Amino acid sequence: MSSHTGQSAVTVLGLGPMGRALAGAFLDAGLRTTVWNRTPGRDRELVARGAVGVRSAEEAVAASSVTVVCVVNYDAVDTIVRREAVAGALKGRTVVNLTADTPDRARGAAAWAAEHGVRYLDGAIMTPTTTIGTPAAVFIHSGPEDLYREHRPVLEALGGTHTHLGEEIGRAAAYDIALLDIFWTAMAGYAHALAVARAEGITARELAPFAKGIGDILPPIFEEAAEEADSGSYSGEGNPITSAVSSMAHIVHTSEAHGIDAGVMRAAEGMARRAVGRGHGADGFIRIAELLGRR
Amino acid sequence: MSSHTGQSAVTVLGLGPMGRALAGAFLDAGLRTTVWNRTPGRDRELVARGAVGVRSAEEAVAASSVTVVCVVNYDAVDTIVRREAVAGALKGRTVVNLTADTPDRARGAAAWAAEHGVRYLDGAIMTPTTTIGTPAAVFIHSGPEDLYREHRPVLEALGGTHTHLGEEIGRAAAYDIALLDIFWTAMAGYAHALAVARAEGITARELAPFAKGIGDILPPIFEEAAEEADSGSYSGEGNPITSAVSSMAHIVHTSEAHGIDAGVMRAAEGMARRAVGRGHGADGFIRIAELLGRR
Repeated sequence: MSSHTGQSAVTVLGLGPMGRALAGAFLDAGLRTTVWNRTPGRDRELVARGAVGVRSAEEAVAASSVTVVCVVNYDAVDTIVRREAVAGALKGRTVVNLTADTPDRARGAAAWAAEHGVRYLDGAIMTPTTTIGTPAAVFIHSGPEDLYREHRPVLEALGGTHTHLGEEIGRAAAYDIALLDIFWTAMAGYAHALAVARAEGITARELAPFAKGIGDILPPIFEEAAEEADSGSYSGEGNPITSAVSSMAHIVHTSEAHGIDAGVMRAAEGMARRAVGRGHGADGFIRIAELLGRR
Repeated sequence: MSSHTGQSAVTVLGLGPMGRALAGAFLDAGLRTTVWNRTPGRDRELVARGAVGVRSAEEAVAASSVTVVCVVNYDAVDTIVRREAVAGALKGRTVVNLTADTPDRARGAAAWAAEHGVRYLDGAIMTPTTTIGTPAAVFIHSGPEDLYREHRPVLEALGGTHTHLGEEIGRAAAYDIALLDIFWTAMAGYAHALAVARAEGITARELAPFAKGIGDILPPIFEEAAEEADSGSYSGEGNPITSAVSSMAHIVHTSEAHGIDAGVMRAAEGMARRAVGRGHGADGFIRIAELLGRR
């Protein structure tokens, strides 16, 4: 840690809950940390811990060779960094953009950076704010390998695991999107399940040990399904798509009988029924991934 | 095991993959097992292992004091057991219906059973066929407590854990529906995520370690959210519904830019946006369960 002190300096743009967690981890690691947020006043606690608070984004980026950006989305990134004064101050310096958005926005940001002589890495944070600075944090990165290597010591001050996924700049965002797709769809299903359970007189706590059981079987099923998806061989033995359709119809029926919107499951059921309609009823469920990707 | 031999007899109606697994576990436990399936020929392997194969459902149910039914749905159950000859043979005997369907169908089956002097337990199997007869199997049951106690030794011959959820006959089916809701929504999300990843040049195997990471964080998040759902206090600190909406919009955009249907996520996003529209944007995501349940 002390090896960074006095030599490594980092700027954090954006002091929402995640930005504050990132800046706090840099401070804890002994880095000279400059912070800035569009809405003032968010830097108070960090400045009390030793961060340098500045009044403008251009001052902030000029203070360090590397700037980590973590704001709400790339529209917000653009509003901050595409101002002439900021772009000028960034010239020759590195931006590590940990803001979540789409792969095409990451590609657009990289194109802008190249035009303006800004060195650019894209990344995503896969774990909650509470993990930052701990071994539980998970970061993914993409962009030029040499640039990643150069800044890896600063990034590793954030704790956790850091994986460089490749030079294609959109890759971290693409992983992020796919993983958030799994996460938020599962959360939508869980929220819906709790609503149906409650309508049937079952509390969330009563359901919890069984819900945990479902949660526990998902990782090995994901693993097995990944093999099937890559090999293109979908064993439906014991649990074909037709079974999924049957279960899904029961869920929709029970939900709607209680006046609970079943839009998510209706869409999933439609997806599964289309797979059956194309002759894949006896296949394993993950065949659907292949069919979805076929235009 | 030997305590059952010669005294306990069980009939299994329905010899799909799950019915065959159930009958196989009963045989392994030393029970005299009679089997029947609407489509003939499915009993061959079981008969070779010692099961008694019969030609009609009425013969099958007459052979044992308890009949376990596991067919595709309750329409199929009705087609089999509501025939006069079968209903007559079941009089005074017990049906344990492990067929998956909705809570209202379970209630309808119990009402029919009561009218016909048939003793009735409902249940559901929460784990795959491969777990049957092993400690990994999970069974849930509902119906009269004394009837459950009477037949528990036979049920426990199936291995795994058996939980009696209450006397209300629809309760096992209601748990089943809620748990399948979590499972199939998560699987739909996973299939969709693999399609988006593939369109971005990422294989399922490349995504797998990170997908496993998402799978691993779900059980503790489910646990925490269950507390919030029951207490009605939804902390959005660090991860409010507005963040979910932002991520969901990115997923929909990326998916549709690749020509991949995003119906499931569009429905989830709509659900989250309605929560924001009702003034709950700063709450934790699981607030949605409460809003869904409110007509």
